[in-house]
Formats: sequence, structure tokens, C-alpha cells
Amino acid sequence: MGKNNVSLRGKNILGLESFSPEEISLVLETAQEMKNIIHRDIKKVPTLRGKSVVNLFYEPSTRTRTSFELAGKYLGADVINMTASTSSVVKGESLRDTLLTIEAMGVDAIIMRHKAEGAAEYATKVVEPVILNAGDGAHAHPTQGLLDLFTIMQYKKKFQGLKAVILGDVLHSRVARSDIWGMRKMGMEVHLAGPKTLMPRFLFEEPGIYIHDRIEEALENADVINCLRIQLERQKAGLFPSTREYARIFGLNDARLALAKKDVLVMHPGPMNKGLEISPYVAYGAHSAIQEQVQNGVAIRMALLILVLTGGKNIEANS
Amino acid sequence: MGKNNVSLRGKNILGLESFSPEEISLVLETAQEMKNIIHRDIKKVPTLRGKSVVNLFYEPSTRTRTSFELAGKYLGADVINMTASTSSVVKGESLRDTLLTIEAMGVDAIIMRHKAEGAAEYATKVVEPVILNAGDGAHAHPTQGLLDLFTIMQYKKKFQGLKAVILGDVLHSRVARSDIWGMRKMGMEVHLAGPKTLMPRFLFEEPGIYIHDRIEEALENADVINCLRIQLERQKAGLFPSTREYARIFGLNDARLALAKKDVLVMHPGPMNKGLEISPYVAYGAHSAIQEQVQNGVAIRMALLILVLTGGKNIEANS
Amino acid sequence: MGKNNVSLRGKNILGLESFSPEEISLVLETAQEMKNIIHRDIKKVPTLRGKSVVNLFYEPSTRTRTSFELAGKYLGADVINMTASTSSVVKGESLRDTLLTIEAMGVDAIIMRHKAEGAAEYATKVVEPVILNAGDGAHAHPTQGLLDLFTIMQYKKKFQGLKAVILGDVLHSRVARSDIWGMRKMGMEVHLAGPKTLMPRFLFEEPGIYIHDRIEEALENADVINCLRIQLERQKAGLFPSTREYARIFGLNDARLALAKKDVLVMHPGPMNKGLEISPYVAYGAHSAIQEQVQNGVAIRMALLILVLTGGKNIEANS
Repeated sequence: MGKNNVSLRGKNILGLESFSPEEISLVLETAQEMKNIIHRDIKKVPTLRGKSVVNLFYEPSTRTRTSFELAGKYLGADVINMTASTSSVVKGESLRDTLLTIEAMGVDAIIMRHKAEGAAEYATKVVEPVILNAGDGAHAHPTQGLLDLFTIMQYKKKFQGLKAVILGDVLHSRVARSDIWGMRKMGMEVHLAGPKTLMPRFLFEEPGIYIHDRIEEALENADVINCLRIQLERQKAGLFPSTREYARIFGLNDARLALAKKDVLVMHPGPMNKGLEISPYVAYGAHSAIQEQVQNGVAIRMALLILVLTGGKNIEANS
Repeated sequence: MGKNNVSLRGKNILGLESFSPEEISLVLETAQEMKNIIHRDIKKVPTLRGKSVVNLFYEPSTRTRTSFELAGKYLGADVINMTASTSSVVKGESLRDTLLTIEAMGVDAIIMRHKAEGAAEYATKVVEPVILNAGDGAHAHPTQGLLDLFTIMQYKKKFQGLKAVILGDVLHSRVARSDIWGMRKMGMEVHLAGPKTLMPRFLFEEPGIYIHDRIEEALENADVINCLRIQLERQKAGLFPSTREYARIFGLNDARLALAKKDVLVMHPGPMNKGLEISPYVAYGAHSAIQEQVQNGVAIRMALLILVLTGGKNIEANS
Repeated sequence: MGKNNVSLRGKNILGLESFSPEEISLVLETAQEMKNIIHRDIKKVPTLRGKSVVNLFYEPSTRTRTSFELAGKYLGADVINMTASTSSVVKGESLRDTLLTIEAMGVDAIIMRHKAEGAAEYATKVVEPVILNAGDGAHAHPTQGLLDLFTIMQYKKKFQGLKAVILGDVLHSRVARSDIWGMRKMGMEVHLAGPKTLMPRFLFEEPGIYIHDRIEEALENADVINCLRIQLERQKAGLFPSTREYARIFGLNDARLALAKKDVLVMHPGPMNKGLEISPYVAYGAHSAIQEQVQNGVAIRMALLILVLTGGKNIEANS
């Protein structure tokens, strides 16, 4: 590990735009070791014993919060949950003061989800513990981006030259942004498709990124499809006509899947609206890696916690 | 342990209807060992170290959730709480997808409470981790049934021929159902009494089960009384006239207790409405085993976790 | 440790009025050892392994609850959170029955916050596990009082003869009460200042306690200032005219701070309303020990848990 002298020790994980391909590779290699631990009968290594990690979630989440909590516990860390919904103090107190409080308690890493873009980066300016961004507004969700790359590597054994298609509400999606950054770094082509009202304009000029009006066009010869979750409130805001219309024109179903390569990989960040952005047949079908993504998410988060807190050496020796 | 080659390893704990008397005995014997651990100065054995358990609660609960959480922690397991009230994802996502997600995270057992009858059984069809039913609608609450049996054994040293009386809203009670299955398996006679509107009809024909209109009649010569909690919303639904009326006609008080055997045991699944279904004098009186039931609940849940996850051998050796 | 044969083993921590100066000194000395542990790379000692602690919070709290949770975990205890907001059972059940339930589960200590004065003391009459009061109405918040003393000792190296000023809503503040008791025990002079409507009358006659109408008068030559949080609901109740008016007349700003001694220490129990009771310049300025207080809070709570559960001997040897 740490080949080419790459180390992530002490690095804040804010977004994949600041990762080099070598750093991404280091995370993926470490995640593979972590995945082996998850498959053991005794899923416990003492690497992070005596380290404490806070899950600071200003937006509700089960999936990501639980994934980080398990990742920390599998590694022997103490994990504390602080969620805005159950905490009046967090609500009343400024973000700065909450962060200073957590730092003062002797915490080693803060995993943070916040509705404001840049919140995680702001945190790095206020406190010293390592910050892991678990989603900041529409900006970034780097652990999701990394677990998507890890899933692609697992099935495709390479990145270079692969055609990825991201379907749906790219405009508001931090998952899409992190995927695009990560996929481009690793040499993939990225195609975006969905309602025009949900496509980003800022990316039109970037090399290797293509925007399509019709998803059929985008899907042709795709190696990887990431189908984003549609937030139902977008419809109320008039960004697409009806859920039925959406499913008809943009939903990922068997017919559309047939346009892609025969060994195409289907991903979804979850939770799914089955029958809306994805049909149940595709969601649970032979091409779906959706459940594998969840397991890979735990492995990626274990890898990041180890790499930023210890540098990643001697994973099983620190008992 | 495991005498007569009985083993519960990998068994889903859905309801007591599928338990043999030998299996129940194995659980009770193991629970006795667990209770000894609770009484130690250092309440910790490493038997389930490296195992992870999720408390997936779709209905609010403190008592049962905490009991399982402590049971897991006393045994060295990692315990993760996922409750619908603090989790928007759980709400928006289908039960199937939530279960698949938990499975993918590498969890060994899922403890599940859900308002729908059969939810726990459904879960066993969807995922591989062992399912422990912590209450599914009005269907079953098997760990409560087992802790009630464990409490009876502690005080009575036998089951065969004992007369149990279950008082109150039997119709809507998963506790009553699990008690009835368990008590009948172990050779007890079961008498049910309460408002006619709250008595089940489906049990009229079963051998060994008797339904009474007047609770005085039911209480005569009782060895064990289980006084169920009255849900106040039943009154709004018109199932009984008023709480005052209920207490007067069906409440368990000293006068009624005197109709039972001199050494009668009083149980209640909690939380109690004191002054409604049970008087404070009875609740805290000499016959009450209500607090003991709580401790026995932790012991039963420890026993079940060990038995389903390890088979129960070498409880203290796996360090 | 335990010099002069002082021991807190088994002592309920209800309020500082019942502490002797020797007992306070023992807590502060132990907290210093604990603080060293927090600064280690591996923040974990196994002293409380096999002990279980419940955080029973009937009022919302992040800061104090998290501080106790980390304190317990750094010492190897199992910590269970039971908060009224996420628990319907706790709400429906009497305090007595909830306490009996927790006791029955084999818990060693109950950390309790409740809106009613005397709730923690009541708990000691109902159950045997040690009770640690984390705030009972306007009565007491002893761990805050102790962490304030610990912070003063850290910076001033003594208590005797120091002049402390407590600013703001003393009348409704459990922090103020615990500070006053603790500071007086240790030989400090206590000056109170704020709106007349928020000053306590019951203390007018006590020796060593002085009430001022103008905070400028109180601040003269102060060694220590504790600036209390203003609850905004007090204004609605008509106890002070407007937040702007409050800040102008009673807010702690640089100009007022200049009235105190040159090495004055500024404390605040948090969370702060910056710009109301304290200016941001003072809050983050050179005199502020506010973040240090948070860390000292974890150390004090570790010290108390160890002292009441083990007596405090052989802190690192019990593995």
C-alpha cells in the first residue's frame, strides 16, 4: 500500500475533483482488503481502536449514516451519531460552534452531511479533525463516487475507455457530480441524459462529457449505467410533467437496457423509486449491481477511515 | 447444551408456533446462563465479537429495542439502531430494499419490529441474515413469550398443569398470541378474560384454551396472571366504554387477586397503565414479577442471539 | 487518589451542595488523569469494560449527551441512549417505571436529564444504580459546575479568593446554581449581574454572594466570568425588553471585558447566542476558555464515571 509514496493520511475527503488517479487507486485497493474483512466470520479488526468518529448529519439519512457507522465499528472505532433531527442543540447552534465542540471532545474524524454546498470544506477551515464529506447539497458525495468506481472495477476490471451513462436529475445530484469527477479521472467517457430541465449547463464544454436529449441515444453501447433517484419534489417544482410521463420517457426498463452493451452494469445510489426512474425488472435483474454497491460502500468507507486516520499501514496489527 | 441434538443455529425467530418444547427448553436453559452473566460485576463475554446486529424498528419502542441492544452489547456484538422515526430513507424505501441494503452491509442478524402481521416472515424470504421478530402487528412477539415462560419457570419450577390467565385486549395482542402458543406447548392451561369486544374468536375451538366473560371466574385458582396493556385508542374505537368502567370491571386489583392461588404470579408486558388495567398495589406488590420480567427479557434475547448465531457452544471461549 | 480516605464509590451525583471540598478536589485530580487519556493517540482504557451506562434524556441535548457518551466509550463502557424524543414508550410510561425497567436490565449507572427539579434525586429513591444528574430543571447541573471549576483550576492554579462573575439569567439557570455551590465551597467570591427580573432573590442573604444591578460594577477586577446562555423564550415572557436592548445593556463585549482583570477567564456553558449575551470577539478571543470547557467536560464525566463505579483505583489496570 502507499505505492508511489501516495498517502491520504490526514486528507479531508471533500470531493473527487481533488483526487489524483493514484489516490483513487489506493482507496480502491484498500477497499478490496476491507471487503475481505466484511466477508469473514468475525468482522472485526482493531485498527481504529481508541479512535473516535462522529457522524454529524444535518440531513436525514439511514443508508450512508449506517454504512459509516458499521465501517467504523468493524474497525474498532467508537462511533457517535449526532443528527439534527434528534438534537435541538445542533439546530440552535451555529455550524462553527458545533464543529468546535466536537473537536474539543477529542474526536479524530467528523463525517458530515449538510444541505449547503461547501459545508464540508468550511468545516476543514474551522477544525483540525479530518472531515469526510457525506454529502454537501448538490456539490459532492465523494464516498458514493468512490464506491461506484469500486463497483465498476469489480465487474469491468478496468476504467479506461469505458462508456458510462448517468440518467436522470443530474442537475441537482451530488452523486452525479462525484461520479463525473471520478469517472473522468479514471479515463471513462461520461454521457448524461434526462429531462432538459434537469441537465447541467456548466458541463457542456468539458471534454469527455456528453449531454443527450434522448436517453436511447445515450444508452447505445453503454458499459455502465448509473440511474439516479428522482426526488418527487422536483415534479412539484414543474421540472417534469408527471411521474407517469417520466417513467415512460426516461425510465430505465428492459427495452432501453437492450440498447446498451450485452454486459452492461446497472447501478443506482438508492433508495430506488421502482417503477419511476427504474423498473423492478432492471433493478433486480442480471445486470444490476445495486446491492453490491451497498456492500462496496461499507468497504470504501472502511478504507477511507483507515487511510485518513492511520495512513493505511499494518491494518491488522494494531491490537 | 444442544441436548437431544436440538440446535437453533440459523433459525429465524418468527413465533412460538414453530418451536418444539425441546427448543423452548434449550432457550430457557441458555437464558439462565445469560442471566448469571448479567449479575456479574463485569457483564461482558466476547461470544459475539465481530458479529453485527441491526435493530430495525418501524414502530416506536424503547423497552424491547434497548433490551436487544444491551443483549447484543453484553455479548460483544456491534449493534446498530435503525428506527423509522429518525430515518426518512427507511420511510421512503420499500421494506424489501431496506432489508437488501442491510444484508449487503454484512449484517449477521436483523431484529425487526413492524406494524404488519407477517413482516418478519416476509423478511426471511428476502434476505439471508437471521431474522428475530420483535413484534409484527398483532401476530407474534416471540421474545416476550419466551421471557414470560422463563419467568414462570423461575418461580414455579414447572409448566405442566399450571393455570394461566391472560387479562385484557387479547384480540389485538401479539404478546397474548405468543404466550398462548408457548404456554400450550409447555402443557399449561390458558384462560382468557376481558371485554367481549376484545376477545379473539379464532381460539374458541382450541383445546386447553378457555374464554371467560367475567374475569373473576377466570382468576379462580390461577397460578399465573398476565395482565395485558390496554391501548387507549381501543376506547376511542368504541371497544370499551370508558377507562373508569374498564378499571372497575376488568382491572386487576387486590380483591380480584385474592381469587387466585396464594402463590399466584403476576406479570405485565409493560409499559403499565397503572390504575387502568392493573392497580399500583398489585403492580408493585408481593406477587408481581414485572421487574423480573424485564431482566429475563435481556437474558432471553442474549440466549437467542447466541443460539441462532453460534449454536450456543463455548459461550465464553471465543475471545 | 482517594487521599484522606475520600471515596465517591456509589455516590449519586445530584448537585454540588452535597460535595465537600475534598471530594471536589478528588474529582478534579482524576479529571486531569482523564484529560491525559483524551490527548493520547489511542483514547481507550478498559477500566469500565463490562459496565453499562444509560443516557436517559427527557430534554433534548447534544452537547451533554455526547460528552457522557464519549466519556463512557473512552473508558470501555457500553453506553445506551434513551431519549424522550425518539421514544414513545418513555413518554407514555411513568418515570418510576422507566427507571425500574432500566435497573432491571442490569445497568450500572443512569445519566439523567429531566425538566423537573428533583427528578434525579427522586430516581435515587426508586432504583439502585448510581444516578448522575445531567440537569434537573433549574435546580442543578453538577457536571457543568465541576467542569467549570476544572477549567478555572487549569488557568488560575487556585480557587481561594478569586472573584467570579456570573452574567445573565441566573434565576432560571441550573448552571449558575451548580457554579455558585462549587465556587463557594472552594473559597471563591461570586458576583451575579443581569436584568433584575432574572436575578434570584433566595441568594441575597448568603455570605460571599453579591448581586449587582449594573454588570460594569460586577465586572471590576473579575478573575473569572461565566456568561450564561439567554433563552429566547424569556423575552417572550416579558423578562427583558428586546434582544437588542439585552445585548446593549448586558452583553459581554470587549469594552466591558476591559473592566475585569487583565488575565480574566471567560467561560460560557454553550450553546452561545453570539451577538446577544456574548460578542463573537469575546467568544473567540484570547480570554475565552469556552472550547477548553468542552474538553474538560468529557474529562470530568470520565472522572465521575470511574469514581462512582470503581472508586477510582487502578484506572488502567482492569483489562
